[in-house]
Amino acid sequence: MIELGIVGVGAIAHKQHKAAVDAHAGFSLAASASHDGAFDGVPAYREMSEMLAAHPEISAVTLCVPPRVRTRLALEAIQAGKHVFLEKPPGQTVAEVLALEAAAKAAGVTLFASWHSRYAAAVEPLKAAIAEHGMRGVQVPWREDARIYHPGQRWIWEDGGFGCFDPGINALSILTHVLPAPFYTEAAKFWIPENATQPVRAELLYRDTVGRAIEALFDFDHPEPAEWSIIVETDGPTLTLSGGGKRLMVGDAVAVDAPDAEYLALYDLFAGLVAGSRSDVDLLPLIHCSDAFLLAEREVAPAFVE
Amino acid sequence: MIELGIVGVGAIAHKQHKAAVDAHAGFSLAASASHDGAFDGVPAYREMSEMLAAHPEISAVTLCVPPRVRTRLALEAIQAGKHVFLEKPPGQTVAEVLALEAAAKAAGVTLFASWHSRYAAAVEPLKAAIAEHGMRGVQVPWREDARIYHPGQRWIWEDGGFGCFDPGINALSILTHVLPAPFYTEAAKFWIPENATQPVRAELLYRDTVGRAIEALFDFDHPEPAEWSIIVETDGPTLTLSGGGKRLMVGDAVAVDAPDAEYLALYDLFAGLVAGSRSDVDLLPLIHCSDAFLLAEREVAPAFVE
Repeated sequence: MIELGIVGVGAIAHKQHKAAVDAHAGFSLAASASHDGAFDGVPAYREMSEMLAAHPEISAVTLCVPPRVRTRLALEAIQAGKHVFLEKPPGQTVAEVLALEAAAKAAGVTLFASWHSRYAAAVEPLKAAIAEHGMRGVQVPWREDARIYHPGQRWIWEDGGFGCFDPGINALSILTHVLPAPFYTEAAKFWIPENATQPVRAELLYRDTVGRAIEALFDFDHPEPAEWSIIVETDGPTLTLSGGGKRLMVGDAVAVDAPDAEYLALYDLFAGLVAGSRSDVDLLPLIHCSDAFLLAEREVAPAFVE
Repeated sequence: MIELGIVGVGAIAHKQHKAAVDAHAGFSLAASASHDGAFDGVPAYREMSEMLAAHPEISAVTLCVPPRVRTRLALEAIQAGKHVFLEKPPGQTVAEVLALEAAAKAAGVTLFASWHSRYAAAVEPLKAAIAEHGMRGVQVPWREDARIYHPGQRWIWEDGGFGCFDPGINALSILTHVLPAPFYTEAAKFWIPENATQPVRAELLYRDTVGRAIEALFDFDHPEPAEWSIIVETDGPTLTLSGGGKRLMVGDAVAVDAPDAEYLALYDLFAGLVAGSRSDVDLLPLIHCSDAFLLAEREVAPAFVE
């Protein structure tokens, strides 16, 4: 049984982590630390350091805080000898996650950089279908209304906040897992609201090493219903992943349509990593984000008003 | 003897690669390909594909073209079974260099992502001196007049051109080699000229995993004389690397002051990699660049006029 502390009690901790930990036989939620949230009936602290001092039985922490403060807290937890589960994105920069990986190795603890979308029900079936039918090209419309899915999350619009890449990185975490060849950003165009510094919209053209195009549109100002889809043209039927990974259509036929169990799978994986004294740190989705920021043509867009 | 083709005959090919290859017993320059340059007395082609078709004896190519077209040409060369030497930066994005690395492995050829500044005479002595005296903090003034050192290189100011990170990445290639702990970008501020999209000036604050600060200033609009220095405060004497890596002062004493032999060392290394069927692809300096672009606060600066 792993005694766990959750740090950062916001939307994702309430909606996903708490339920997954409660349902998982391998974990027990000992306490939480947060500047602005708590769980009913669970000991709550403001600072992670207070939580760790009061609960020496905690051997692992999950960090759901915004990326801006994630690395400082992750380093502190690693140096205290705790295993660390990082919500996505695993950090604000690629180099800081590499540094965390080295620190975890030196301390002999597990670091898990989680990508929840990879564990959606239709993702492995999509990978198998691409391998079976052969990929020609990919379209990735990934769009939602930030007012509905990220209300009041002002940090997302500020320097280092990722903007529309905050959801978009979920698409990248699926693409890097299912596509048959490495790909890279060939062109990127950002629209930056005049009252923000991060893109509300990004048009991305990726190219893979055999020359095929992957076109993505990340849009944070899209009226309901949201669309989180990956459409793969193949030599045979079109493959359509939707609902962020819950559903797969092969041509006109529904191949998968399953409820969300991503976070239970993540805690399974984390338990296995801890038991095996291993880490799992795949930087590629974050690398694709920073690459886009390095390459992008930027245009000013109207102010984004919640 | 490795028969070599040089692709992209501009300033760096003329100034460095030609002389190093001529002086190296393990290489023979068979031909070049370039849209706008040639070497006296060396067969010259416009396209790399023409050069490779006319000179099947060529087993390796050096790519000195701008980063924008480097990956396409590198992939083409790798898929033609040639070993590839990449000038810095090794690509326009991190993911494309990862893709090249995978392609080189699949094709059984050598990929060498070179960082010439690491082979400057005073770099290894600086690393040894830091290990001896203990590092407290680092200052990195890296500034030059782009009008003098990059005349007419318009691509450097356009999307994906790196701006002041084109020289700055040399400092990062040294820092990632000599500093004793991993570090990451904590804050970045860019000044973007109103007639460009890339920074003319960047103030960077890095933090290492034991909390020490590394402060860098990359400035592309600095009057002569240029300054390419790394100043390390230690528990003992201050260590001052200057001249981009040629000179080292330990306190007031000159420890190293040696002429430039970086490119001869690079071709030595490349010959060894080819002989050993190995690649050398360190992405960290490029990762620090893309991280800064991901994180940076951006400010508009006056137009940069050559």
